[in-house]
Amino acid sequence: MQIGILGAATTKFGELWGISPRQLVREVVAEALADSNLKLKDIDALYVGNMLSGILGGQENLGAFFAAELGLTCPAFKIEGACASGGLAVYNAGLAVRSGQFNHVLVVGVEKMTDHKPEEVATGLMGAGSDEERQAGATFPGLYALMAQAHMREFGTTEEEMAGVAVKNHFHASLNGKAQFTFGVTLEKVLQSTLIADPIKLLDCSPISDGAAAVVVSSQPKHKKPVVIKGAGVATDTLGLAERKSLTELAAAKTAASIAYKQAGIKPSDIDVAEVHDCFTIAEIMALEDLGFYKKGQAGKAILKGETTLGKGRLVVNTSGGLKACGHPVGATGVKQVVEIVSQLRGEAHKKQVGGAKVGLTHNVGGTGAVAVVHIFERA
Amino acid sequence: MQIGILGAATTKFGELWGISPRQLVREVVAEALADSNLKLKDIDALYVGNMLSGILGGQENLGAFFAAELGLTCPAFKIEGACASGGLAVYNAGLAVRSGQFNHVLVVGVEKMTDHKPEEVATGLMGAGSDEERQAGATFPGLYALMAQAHMREFGTTEEEMAGVAVKNHFHASLNGKAQFTFGVTLEKVLQSTLIADPIKLLDCSPISDGAAAVVVSSQPKHKKPVVIKGAGVATDTLGLAERKSLTELAAAKTAASIAYKQAGIKPSDIDVAEVHDCFTIAEIMALEDLGFYKKGQAGKAILKGETTLGKGRLVVNTSGGLKACGHPVGATGVKQVVEIVSQLRGEAHKKQVGGAKVGLTHNVGGTGAVAVVHIFERA
Repeated sequence: MQIGILGAATTKFGELWGISPRQLVREVVAEALADSNLKLKDIDALYVGNMLSGILGGQENLGAFFAAELGLTCPAFKIEGACASGGLAVYNAGLAVRSGQFNHVLVVGVEKMTDHKPEEVATGLMGAGSDEERQAGATFPGLYALMAQAHMREFGTTEEEMAGVAVKNHFHASLNGKAQFTFGVTLEKVLQSTLIADPIKLLDCSPISDGAAAVVVSSQPKHKKPVVIKGAGVATDTLGLAERKSLTELAAAKTAASIAYKQAGIKPSDIDVAEVHDCFTIAEIMALEDLGFYKKGQAGKAILKGETTLGKGRLVVNTSGGLKACGHPVGATGVKQVVEIVSQLRGEAHKKQVGGAKVGLTHNVGGTGAVAVVHIFERA
Repeated sequence: MQIGILGAATTKFGELWGISPRQLVREVVAEALADSNLKLKDIDALYVGNMLSGILGGQENLGAFFAAELGLTCPAFKIEGACASGGLAVYNAGLAVRSGQFNHVLVVGVEKMTDHKPEEVATGLMGAGSDEERQAGATFPGLYALMAQAHMREFGTTEEEMAGVAVKNHFHASLNGKAQFTFGVTLEKVLQSTLIADPIKLLDCSPISDGAAAVVVSSQPKHKKPVVIKGAGVATDTLGLAERKSLTELAAAKTAASIAYKQAGIKPSDIDVAEVHDCFTIAEIMALEDLGFYKKGQAGKAILKGETTLGKGRLVVNTSGGLKACGHPVGATGVKQVVEIVSQLRGEAHKKQVGGAKVGLTHNVGGTGAVAVVHIFERA
């Protein structure tokens, strides 16, 4: 069964104090529907990806919440899987379409984070962590710092290589009018930024963000520029780092990728453009290794050489600017990744277009790798 | 495609202060797997139904959380839809199996509520309500009281009829070793219990509960006593009561039921046994009307006459004791309803067995009817 993406849209990501989640969703859905050439009445089901609305705002029941806001009475569900909530919502929309029960399934990823105190957001995000990590007071920069330290020790990865991820993704974001950060950064600026959790510095971190993204998953991807889902995989792992065999790879991401590649019948070298989960710069380095693009210890060096930068490399990574510079409104991120890949495969990515991109991949991670979801898309 | 339920199990429901959510889930899954004649390695995906873990405990990412606890690395998802979270998890497991991607999908519904202060739980539960209701300080007894008042005014429904629901469901629960309340109540006792929100009294309310339930949804329901899913429907409505056309019916439940009946190719009079969402006694009266068992204004009178009581009626309702007396650990409720119907259709419900039950129905509601899910099951 051929399923694909019709419309795809994202709001601007950033500190959007003047706009409510309702309004973000209304705007992004209107744009995605227009792009789909569908009306609201054509939508058979709604999947909402969101992590923090319950913890930070006390509001649950988001499936029905946004269905009502949009004027829908169709089946509606909230999917939560920490920072992978958006990707998992897309994945479940795909299952729903494949089930034969629905033709057009709307997916909305949304998060409003900047209205809350940063300390509350940091604590809320630890809702993705293990009991032990939460009780120990760990935060995600600290956990990723442990992974970065291990990667440096095992493979000689350097702080400069990590900084290279930030430089590339800020450059890409500077070409993306929807990105939170559109300023460029230099290696020196990243390396000299405030130390957060050694070796992670301020400019190695993705920001706290607001935003929404939407796609329509369809059994009849009859768009003027159709993009089909060729493969999809999800896998899970322990929430806590302490129980993992390795700190330098995400087993869930490797498994999810192998399922998706097998389903798509393609190999890593077939991918032209990828959106990967760079919540911290070390995460992008591990992602490119877990996805089979580079051998362990090689990704950082390749990124620093520009191999994954627009206009330089064959495989271009995070043309949106990634979580790092486009922003990371948690539940929206996995959906935004799909929006970016769809725009690339349609040839509609404007200044950030990867020439001739035919096959794209998205890689969305929850927690420090407790859950991962990988999708592979192709221009039909 | 024929899909069905293999194993089905529930923990005891009640105030389970001495047992953690992890342990509840381990126990209930072990029992459901044994009943399925499956091993953990046979499980292809996990859906977790839960509402309050984020709001009350700060723990999200429950798909991966319980996958890891069980020793699974398969795809795992948390589905949240307020008090319908469990039923919606079963529904999504059904879609996942129908998609052809998975053969055996484990569904776990779980909630741990009694470890928290009642005020915190009441506030947390309002995460299912509309902004306006939350800001006004409404709680669910108050909202259902408005519906009860309207039902009394429009149809002459009496407080005695509502009390009849409690009497019946406490009687059924007295036959269920897993129920939270196993004591019987009389009409007088219910009518004389403390007034909570006029006309709802203490004994018209379902309790705050802990518990877990699990089922395995399978594309190969090759159990010695197979039970198949004949129909499933979900629909949504506004979160707030103020925007509804009627306070005396749940439009979402009516729509969900009509989809399920149509899919199953049966009519309400074919149902032998039903588990319905009696969070308050008025809710069961409305449910029996919304599901087409009785005309508006007739359900309360029928219940009071004993038409839906075990050993008396043709259609028996809430043999488990319902939310009212079996207990209402929110995320577990919708899954427990399925467990009860499966045991009835297998003829394994012991003292609470409905003789010759062949077709069963579950009706699970989120909020005051913002989302509803109806399943119809048949003995194969």
